Amino acid sequence: MALIIWISFTYLDAKASSALKKSSRYRSRSLSASSTDSYSSASCTGSSSEDDDISPREKVQKNSSGNFDFCVRNINQHAFGRREIEIAEQEMPGIMALRKRAADDKPLKNAKIVGCTHINAQTAVLIETLAALGANVRWAACNIYSTQNEVASALAEAGFSIFAWRGETEEDFWWCIDKCVNADNWQPNMILDDGGDATHLMLKKYPAMFKMIKGIVEESVTGVHRLYQLSKAGKLTVPAMNVNDSVTKTKYDNLYSCRESIIDSLKRSTDLMFGGKQVVICGYGEVGKGCSQALKGLGCVVYVTEIDPICALQASMDGNRVVKLNEVIRNVDIVITATGNKNVVTREHMDKMKNGCIVCNMGHSNTEIDVNNLRTPDLTWEKVRSQVDHVIWPDGKRIILLAEGRLVNLSCSSLPSFVVSITSATQALALIELFNAPAGRYKSDVYLLPKKMDEYVASLHLPTFDAHLTELTDEQAKYMGLNKAGPFKPNYYRY
Amino acid sequence: MALIIWISFTYLDAKASSALKKSSRYRSRSLSASSTDSYSSASCTGSSSEDDDISPREKVQKNSSGNFDFCVRNINQHAFGRREIEIAEQEMPGIMALRKRAADDKPLKNAKIVGCTHINAQTAVLIETLAALGANVRWAACNIYSTQNEVASALAEAGFSIFAWRGETEEDFWWCIDKCVNADNWQPNMILDDGGDATHLMLKKYPAMFKMIKGIVEESVTGVHRLYQLSKAGKLTVPAMNVNDSVTKTKYDNLYSCRESIIDSLKRSTDLMFGGKQVVICGYGEVGKGCSQALKGLGCVVYVTEIDPICALQASMDGNRVVKLNEVIRNVDIVITATGNKNVVTREHMDKMKNGCIVCNMGHSNTEIDVNNLRTPDLTWEKVRSQVDHVIWPDGKRIILLAEGRLVNLSCSSLPSFVVSITSATQALALIELFNAPAGRYKSDVYLLPKKMDEYVASLHLPTFDAHLTELTDEQAKYMGLNKAGPFKPNYYRY
Amino acid sequence: MALIIWISFTYLDAKASSALKKSSRYRSRSLSASSTDSYSSASCTGSSSEDDDISPREKVQKNSSGNFDFCVRNINQHAFGRREIEIAEQEMPGIMALRKRAADDKPLKNAKIVGCTHINAQTAVLIETLAALGANVRWAACNIYSTQNEVASALAEAGFSIFAWRGETEEDFWWCIDKCVNADNWQPNMILDDGGDATHLMLKKYPAMFKMIKGIVEESVTGVHRLYQLSKAGKLTVPAMNVNDSVTKTKYDNLYSCRESIIDSLKRSTDLMFGGKQVVICGYGEVGKGCSQALKGLGCVVYVTEIDPICALQASMDGNRVVKLNEVIRNVDIVITATGNKNVVTREHMDKMKNGCIVCNMGHSNTEIDVNNLRTPDLTWEKVRSQVDHVIWPDGKRIILLAEGRLVNLSCSSLPSFVVSITSATQALALIELFNAPAGRYKSDVYLLPKKMDEYVASLHLPTFDAHLTELTDEQAKYMGLNKAGPFKPNYYRY
Amino acid sequence: MALIIWISFTYLDAKASSALKKSSRYRSRSLSASSTDSYSSASCTGSSSEDDDISPREKVQKNSSGNFDFCVRNINQHAFGRREIEIAEQEMPGIMALRKRAADDKPLKNAKIVGCTHINAQTAVLIETLAALGANVRWAACNIYSTQNEVASALAEAGFSIFAWRGETEEDFWWCIDKCVNADNWQPNMILDDGGDATHLMLKKYPAMFKMIKGIVEESVTGVHRLYQLSKAGKLTVPAMNVNDSVTKTKYDNLYSCRESIIDSLKRSTDLMFGGKQVVICGYGEVGKGCSQALKGLGCVVYVTEIDPICALQASMDGNRVVKLNEVIRNVDIVITATGNKNVVTREHMDKMKNGCIVCNMGHSNTEIDVNNLRTPDLTWEKVRSQVDHVIWPDGKRIILLAEGRLVNLSCSSLPSFVVSITSATQALALIELFNAPAGRYKSDVYLLPKKMDEYVASLHLPTFDAHLTELTDEQAKYMGLNKAGPFKPNYYRY
Repeated sequence: MALIIWISFTYLDAKASSALKKSSRYRSRSLSASSTDSYSSASCTGSSSEDDDISPREKVQKNSSGNFDFCVRNINQHAFGRREIEIAEQEMPGIMALRKRAADDKPLKNAKIVGCTHINAQTAVLIETLAALGANVRWAACNIYSTQNEVASALAEAGFSIFAWRGETEEDFWWCIDKCVNADNWQPNMILDDGGDATHLMLKKYPAMFKMIKGIVEESVTGVHRLYQLSKAGKLTVPAMNVNDSVTKTKYDNLYSCRESIIDSLKRSTDLMFGGKQVVICGYGEVGKGCSQALKGLGCVVYVTEIDPICALQASMDGNRVVKLNEVIRNVDIVITATGNKNVVTREHMDKMKNGCIVCNMGHSNTEIDVNNLRTPDLTWEKVRSQVDHVIWPDGKRIILLAEGRLVNLSCSSLPSFVVSITSATQALALIELFNAPAGRYKSDVYLLPKKMDEYVASLHLPTFDAHLTELTDEQAKYMGLNKAGPFKPNYYRY
Repeated sequence: MALIIWISFTYLDAKASSALKKSSRYRSRSLSASSTDSYSSASCTGSSSEDDDISPREKVQKNSSGNFDFCVRNINQHAFGRREIEIAEQEMPGIMALRKRAADDKPLKNAKIVGCTHINAQTAVLIETLAALGANVRWAACNIYSTQNEVASALAEAGFSIFAWRGETEEDFWWCIDKCVNADNWQPNMILDDGGDATHLMLKKYPAMFKMIKGIVEESVTGVHRLYQLSKAGKLTVPAMNVNDSVTKTKYDNLYSCRESIIDSLKRSTDLMFGGKQVVICGYGEVGKGCSQALKGLGCVVYVTEIDPICALQASMDGNRVVKLNEVIRNVDIVITATGNKNVVTREHMDKMKNGCIVCNMGHSNTEIDVNNLRTPDLTWEKVRSQVDHVIWPDGKRIILLAEGRLVNLSCSSLPSFVVSITSATQALALIELFNAPAGRYKSDVYLLPKKMDEYVASLHLPTFDAHLTELTDEQAKYMGLNKAGPFKPNYYRY
Repeated sequence: MALIIWISFTYLDAKASSALKKSSRYRSRSLSASSTDSYSSASCTGSSSEDDDISPREKVQKNSSGNFDFCVRNINQHAFGRREIEIAEQEMPGIMALRKRAADDKPLKNAKIVGCTHINAQTAVLIETLAALGANVRWAACNIYSTQNEVASALAEAGFSIFAWRGETEEDFWWCIDKCVNADNWQPNMILDDGGDATHLMLKKYPAMFKMIKGIVEESVTGVHRLYQLSKAGKLTVPAMNVNDSVTKTKYDNLYSCRESIIDSLKRSTDLMFGGKQVVICGYGEVGKGCSQALKGLGCVVYVTEIDPICALQASMDGNRVVKLNEVIRNVDIVITATGNKNVVTREHMDKMKNGCIVCNMGHSNTEIDVNNLRTPDLTWEKVRSQVDHVIWPDGKRIILLAEGRLVNLSCSSLPSFVVSITSATQALALIELFNAPAGRYKSDVYLLPKKMDEYVASLHLPTFDAHLTELTDEQAKYMGLNKAGPFKPNYYRY
Repeated sequence: MALIIWISFTYLDAKASSALKKSSRYRSRSLSASSTDSYSSASCTGSSSEDDDISPREKVQKNSSGNFDFCVRNINQHAFGRREIEIAEQEMPGIMALRKRAADDKPLKNAKIVGCTHINAQTAVLIETLAALGANVRWAACNIYSTQNEVASALAEAGFSIFAWRGETEEDFWWCIDKCVNADNWQPNMILDDGGDATHLMLKKYPAMFKMIKGIVEESVTGVHRLYQLSKAGKLTVPAMNVNDSVTKTKYDNLYSCRESIIDSLKRSTDLMFGGKQVVICGYGEVGKGCSQALKGLGCVVYVTEIDPICALQASMDGNRVVKLNEVIRNVDIVITATGNKNVVTREHMDKMKNGCIVCNMGHSNTEIDVNNLRTPDLTWEKVRSQVDHVIWPDGKRIILLAEGRLVNLSCSSLPSFVVSITSATQALALIELFNAPAGRYKSDVYLLPKKMDEYVASLHLPTFDAHLTELTDEQAKYMGLNKAGPFKPNYYRY
């Protein structure tokens, strides 16, 4: 029964979200106008393939090798998907370097991985890398809307057992995951999950099979939260790795990405001019820091609100005025939330904003702006562009609400493939670590990626910047008490 | 005969250009996906109205007051156009402030202005401001593609004599201007020109009428260049004002706009990540300075090439390495031209670039990148997105060329209305100055806007930033030898 | 015997150092030309009092209340010292706020503290604050050279049992500490140490007394290191708090202080112009990050060397070129070490530097630059100013070595009192915490300051910046699972 | 009689000024603790030589070649002076490059120059460069206090006719200049002046000789002002060049120098911490722009006051809040004036400042802060350090006034030799230009340095930054209508 409740929740969640089911800061290219780093590609065809009325489950399809252990929208779209994958390969230097370096070692030889993630060109690069490292995989989508059908076809054509298409029903969704878990001659020993659905299904429906798993790698905030709950409840019987909080990934997901995407989101949605604008940023964590840095670089005056005195002191030392929201709300041109909290910007605040004020959310949830209290009879909503609403007060005052208070950078900008490359490399290394760890290194608990692996992910991406690492001499390593290959910092190091 | 040659040139120019006939850094909203400052509006309908096959010149149309002294695509579209104008009014604080402040004075009373500019919501704000200040106007488009038809309809509905529609023929183009110049009971005394076409036609076809003109205001580089040539040739018989080079407008057109549009252009077209990218900027004038500042603010490493030692020294002192292009061309991720010169980036340079290098032009002309030498049989072009081409070398290397070497910020980003507000206010003040100047202040020559007017344009826009100006005391004004109302700086002041 | 060895080491260390015995980033005002924040005061008299040839231990001195339980250079200098303390009070907002807020609670009532730190105006503010909070204290100097005699006199005059003067002998040094530990009617229950000497003496000489101690607060790297060693060896029988690594203190000691002191140190010692200079920073931890930020702000081109790929990636994303030292050593104008390692800049590197290159150390030890290998017969040293040496190669090339490779910011700039205020408030709170902790909260181990206390230190300093903290609503606190009074972040949070 | 009045004025001026007679932003090394770029040298001996009671005019001195056509304090000090000059040569790359490049051409062959400037190591480099280019020179000091005696001796020893020592009387001052103008077998044909005294004396006392002059080069604001007055009055009978306003020199004197010296001045005098400080800068010209940029780079929050709307708009677009002084005066930590105006900060403002506020002046005169109204009986002044006064209000409030309101960067920081190199090279080129100009190029008027020369000065200093200039191709030069050797910009270009 718990399963059914969960399913309903997931299903509704999936329906409600126009983009992503999980709260991870992730948006695949197929969901956006574009999200390439340097190479760009036509992505408009993603939707064109949904012309087909017959459910993929009812179709009989074979790839050109005669294989039919997959279920995708249309196997014939594989060529376009392959080109997309090839372009993505060029944009993901880290994971490709890993593929090349580890290809001989085959560190995932004998690994049998059930994967459940978004399926798009970048994921395909990950999947094919895992295979190149020796793994067998079966893969389903973690979201009923996010599959890039052509890419799924290309993977199927290449011989992968893919079960995913854009526009699955709730039932399809679980059927697909089930097909990945439960197949002939197939005892999976690893799970790569994004949201916890594959873990959940296997644990509930195939508990015996679940006990044979050597490790779980989970990427999303939601999935990690579920794992910690399972662990607390004593129900986690295998080691799991939380890759969501590894240093390199976190910095890219928050500081570096947001530094760029706040600019991009505001520009694309409102075409405003940044110079001289007054901006208040609620929250001065990594996201707030990134936003402040970028906006000041373009000539904004930045105010910050904080609840944590340490972060407030940081904001001061970085040249931001730390205020309570009410002190500046009548004067600012832009309000950005980045707290992870709820009702940070209330209706009362919005009543005081000046005409034309832009309000958007860069935080972790869509609760930061109290949008519900804007949906009242006295206010008029006018959609002026996709993701841009004018909310009009009786006196004619308009505030400009972006993405209806959801994460504006997911809705109004794109995610560079480079960031996805960091995440993918982290996932792959976590799989390698768990799969190869000597008995006893990991117990049935949730772990962070070992710092040395984190450092390795970083090192895979340095060539992109033509960055040259210095090596410790023997004498220096001894002096510092360090291994020359790392790790180089204690676990509590703050970077 | 000269007229015919000119016409042909203009016509071809107009055809060749997908966007703008003049080289001014101007792009109306109707030409872009969008270009509002804070208020955004749907602009997609601009093209939807071209369903009509009958030439507007053959239609009989009246506005709701019974007036028919206009020619637009479809008078019935006026409501949508009016809404666009209303939104633009909110985005153009300076010109609206001028309208309010000068409405009682009517400084343009008895002015009869022939206008020839792009026709879009922002221009409509200018036109209605001129009328509010007392002027009579007749208006044509300066570009056969740039008219926003609904806006033209709204102006016609409001009683303005507008002759413009999107998709004019060459003959239409000159017919429209002629209708503005030559009408019953109409002796124009002012010209507001953007490219010099109204000036040219009146000078050639109605020389007697031209002599009655009190002044010309010209905004474009091209038009200004023509005026200086006329002046040199002794053929300019009226005073003209070059508003292209006024301080406030120049700073916004170059430094401030480009600081933001380089980021926007690159992000929208390639979704790249800026952090850690190596960029070379060719030219360190206002545009180059703006690009460098913005890119460094987002974590790029910036190199600069310069021919002028003073600008090179500035680049050094601002923390850029000054190099010859060949020294860095193999390593950089992005090449930006901002010189105004030709063949700054040659085929030879592009042969050396690394795979994935992005090349774009922020300068004044489309000659800076030698695109012609990329159109050779050995190279393959692949359009991956609007305004984005991959040029592929025989060995597979791709360089990413934006906007085919044309101005990338005109092609791949939008122009904030705030910048248009600066230009419009400058134009209006130039008209007021020339129209009201006492006899003898201006001779038949080309002038820059008086510094005091330039300062006034700036002051009109300060409230946007809630910026509060300090006033000189009598004692201070005396000490400095200044008038308390300005001008505050000598003409040679460099800002 | 261990004691004797330790003593010798300390003594030599003290002699060798012109400034500080410990490697903490601390410099008292009496050691520098000046180190006030906003209020400045004459500090030159510090040395004028050493005219006295008689050892303080041989003098009979009383304060004006008749008390003689102290030993200072000259009790009559108290008035000047008092003025210095009053000025320091104005510069140390955090510790003064703590004094005011906790004065009624007297959280240190019954605390008997042995203190052993530098003794200067800022320490006096700490000492008098501890007394105001209820503590009895006896205090000695942790360095034979660093005592500000007038301040010691002012404290003695105010009734404090101070045993310290500038220019102590080795024997004096230990005698003074002994006088603080071992006195009539005095069983100390807390130690505030800076370097571990009081702890060491009590542990070795008065082990029974040591067992009665409720807690030790230690501020220096060296002292903390010793505590961890004691703990490992099972010899630590009381709880100790490592305040060196609390978040707030660390950020100020490293990032914020170094961001300013690198500029100050280089400017004061060489009067160079920063704009356009090429700088290589070895190490991109907090210190390196601060240096890079400041130098780029003044127009430098910055290169970074790193051994840790994560930090290298950060350097790249922040716009620094990451290189090996040899790649740039021939071109840079300034070399800064900030690694904590040894022989980072070798003789071989210095052989390649260009004429006029400046070399200095901002790291944790004086081993980073291999100065020993510059003291060879082929090179000539020329002292051109205090802390500035020219090292001259046979071909006439000069490199400019600052502070002989010791910490340049300790030698060539001053430490703002604000930074000392942070440290003092941290020390006071650590004492309060350990003294009042319920039995069982702390075992005989080394602890970090609880995050809530760390946050409290930060909050004490926010008024300086007129920074206004936001409070969580009940609903928000519940949503986040936080106590409204903090702590606000998990322990692993990286800030 | 006019001469006498002038003399009195100059004399008083010289006495009143502790540093410099002219308002140029210039401070020689001998006046400061130090002002070297990378090479530092002991400069304290400058004053040690004033032990001599006999007036130099009464001494009989010969250099080692037997020459006695000079008058300095003590010819025997030449060795130390020579070392100072050698060090300065290394710090002044531009003027040394000019010396090398033009040594064969001898463009100043037959030039006979009367020089009247500060005399210090940097000037000596200029003087010896002029000689190397073929000139004969005779030189006096333009300030009775600023001569570095050892350097004067070194020049005399090298055979130059130098008439200058530190501590001249008024009569000495004019006697020295007279000795340079009026000598046997000497008809000067050029004047290099800094303040206009040599020009004045020659014009008044030797009008016939003055008519033979081919040109005057003047560096100071005051001297330039006098030249324009002479020109207006029709009394200027020779061409003069105003090198004070050349582009390269102006940028270095204002923007680049002040960007660094504001930091240096505040740090050295008050040891404050910049991070988080609120600062108001009065005036946003080049000086204000430099201050704002530097302070924001170190984490300050910056407010700007302006009277000129164009500069106010620039301040806004650069991310500064533009306010009236009264709006922020109660909150700011630092007030900086940079207007060139008077009474910008009044007593009324200072009454409102908060305790501990720092007030200083970076502008062109010492009138910006109304210091006179602080010298009232109700306020107490307390000198806490050289150049640092606390002004204490009856309620105990202290404001910290730097340099008594005079230019704080002249009083509290040093001037890098690199800036002096720029000025010296500009002076030398102006001499070359005027001396070699074909008849008719210059009339009896005041000229700015030709842009091409200005560019040349810049180019001489590029190698310091290892900056590599790009050369125009023939095709490009033609396209731009430029000479490949420059000038590259029109005269009105704003840089």
